[in-house]
Amino acid sequence: MKIVSLAKSFEGAQGVYKHSAESTNCDMTFAVFTPPQAEKIPVPVLWYLSGLTCSHANVMDKGEYRRLAAKLGVAVICPDTSPRGDHVPDEADNWQFGAGAGFYLDATQAPFDEHYQMYSYITSELPKVVKKNFNFDMGRQSIMGHSMGGHGALIIALKNPETYLSCSAFAPIVSPSTADWSKNAFVKYLGADESNWTEYDAVQLIANGSRFGSFLVDQGGADDFLEDGLRPWLLRDECERAGIPLELRMQDGYDHSYNFISTFMDDHIRWHHSFLGD
Amino acid sequence: MKIVSLAKSFEGAQGVYKHSAESTNCDMTFAVFTPPQAEKIPVPVLWYLSGLTCSHANVMDKGEYRRLAAKLGVAVICPDTSPRGDHVPDEADNWQFGAGAGFYLDATQAPFDEHYQMYSYITSELPKVVKKNFNFDMGRQSIMGHSMGGHGALIIALKNPETYLSCSAFAPIVSPSTADWSKNAFVKYLGADESNWTEYDAVQLIANGSRFGSFLVDQGGADDFLEDGLRPWLLRDECERAGIPLELRMQDGYDHSYNFISTFMDDHIRWHHSFLGD
Repeated sequence: MKIVSLAKSFEGAQGVYKHSAESTNCDMTFAVFTPPQAEKIPVPVLWYLSGLTCSHANVMDKGEYRRLAAKLGVAVICPDTSPRGDHVPDEADNWQFGAGAGFYLDATQAPFDEHYQMYSYITSELPKVVKKNFNFDMGRQSIMGHSMGGHGALIIALKNPETYLSCSAFAPIVSPSTADWSKNAFVKYLGADESNWTEYDAVQLIANGSRFGSFLVDQGGADDFLEDGLRPWLLRDECERAGIPLELRMQDGYDHSYNFISTFMDDHIRWHHSFLGD
Repeated sequence: MKIVSLAKSFEGAQGVYKHSAESTNCDMTFAVFTPPQAEKIPVPVLWYLSGLTCSHANVMDKGEYRRLAAKLGVAVICPDTSPRGDHVPDEADNWQFGAGAGFYLDATQAPFDEHYQMYSYITSELPKVVKKNFNFDMGRQSIMGHSMGGHGALIIALKNPETYLSCSAFAPIVSPSTADWSKNAFVKYLGADESNWTEYDAVQLIANGSRFGSFLVDQGGADDFLEDGLRPWLLRDECERAGIPLELRMQDGYDHSYNFISTFMDDHIRWHHSFLGD
């Protein structure tokens, strides 16, 4: 693991790191905020998964998570959203597929399966790299995300309820296998047989029996993607059927941007901290 | 004035606006955060002047000023750092002069004097545009800035002590007329006669009799520009001689970036709010 950049911030340190990843077969970059408490004790970990077109940098620049994470003593890890590199297959003019659009799944279709293994990368490989290099308590992990990253957080929590103590999302894609803007990516990554898509769809995972403690979801009321891509009511209905507590907060007037995310970031960090402990 | 973008943020609104400016003879872009209180009452105004290479956008994205400004009911205005446009003279490969490097002065030398009138723009033209278009109390203005913008805040406060109720700076260039990295710009904007430079140099303004109520200055101890360009001790010594209260806080380990600025932004906003009132 190489340090790309490291700066003192809120008495902790905001770092950017790069490592050669086996699962995605390329160099991967990720950001870590280490709170000041980590100098003395192992601190809990909060993952933030970003949305389409983003890298680790967008939320690092605009997410406004450091002030409260430093105060409460929570590490925040912000991975990239896909494999990247000249040798990684991509569609440069398609923002909903390829680079910046890994959808946190393990692709099964050639040639994408050689690199697009973001589910394994986020849930298995990167945690090992973090454990080896930081004074973090990997027994206390929570996860959140935005849009495609909200989808990632939800499915990863549902598939690993013993690993993540809490899960929240900002404007998540709750059912990417049935949304027009994400179905095309699922076909290319997972093949035409839609029965293989349900493993990476929060609504369908719940319908098929997956469970998680509880979810916090914020959704902007002025989000342009609300009706077609996001549709949080599908998650609400499925959680109701399954008896999973979901706090779905419709935030009047907010859009899909980091203006929305940063406004409610404190609420999410406090909520996760209530599960993670000091 | 045209709205470039507008998004709800922290119950207020983060906007970006564009207007045709007479003083700089070009279109100018600026950012305004309007706190929610402005819907009911005229709110006080806090100016943030940015540093070399920045536009209005850097601090808007990374400054983390909205949460507390919304809570306290303070509008935050972030202007650009220079005139811009195909017809504006520039040196594209020089980050210390031209576009992004207006130094908040009124140039006297051709061809720069036709556009580089940032002092007049910030102190006279833009406040009129703001007064006309927003529900702000222009009788209560304060000013802060970073690096070149810290220089701008200091000289503008010193030259207009009746207009600005308080002034603070992050890592300001306290004496640009004597620093190697800024002298070259002063020659081009103001001519070779150095006696004309003192009007735009905080240390020399104070030495020549300008006064202001008090200053708050934060300076990172790991700032690469500390020794050559910034030299806050020059301001400290001159303020001591003049009897101007200066709280100069050396912040161990912090660099020149927005990681430093955002860490101490809350302190600065609270300090200005104590002068501006509710």
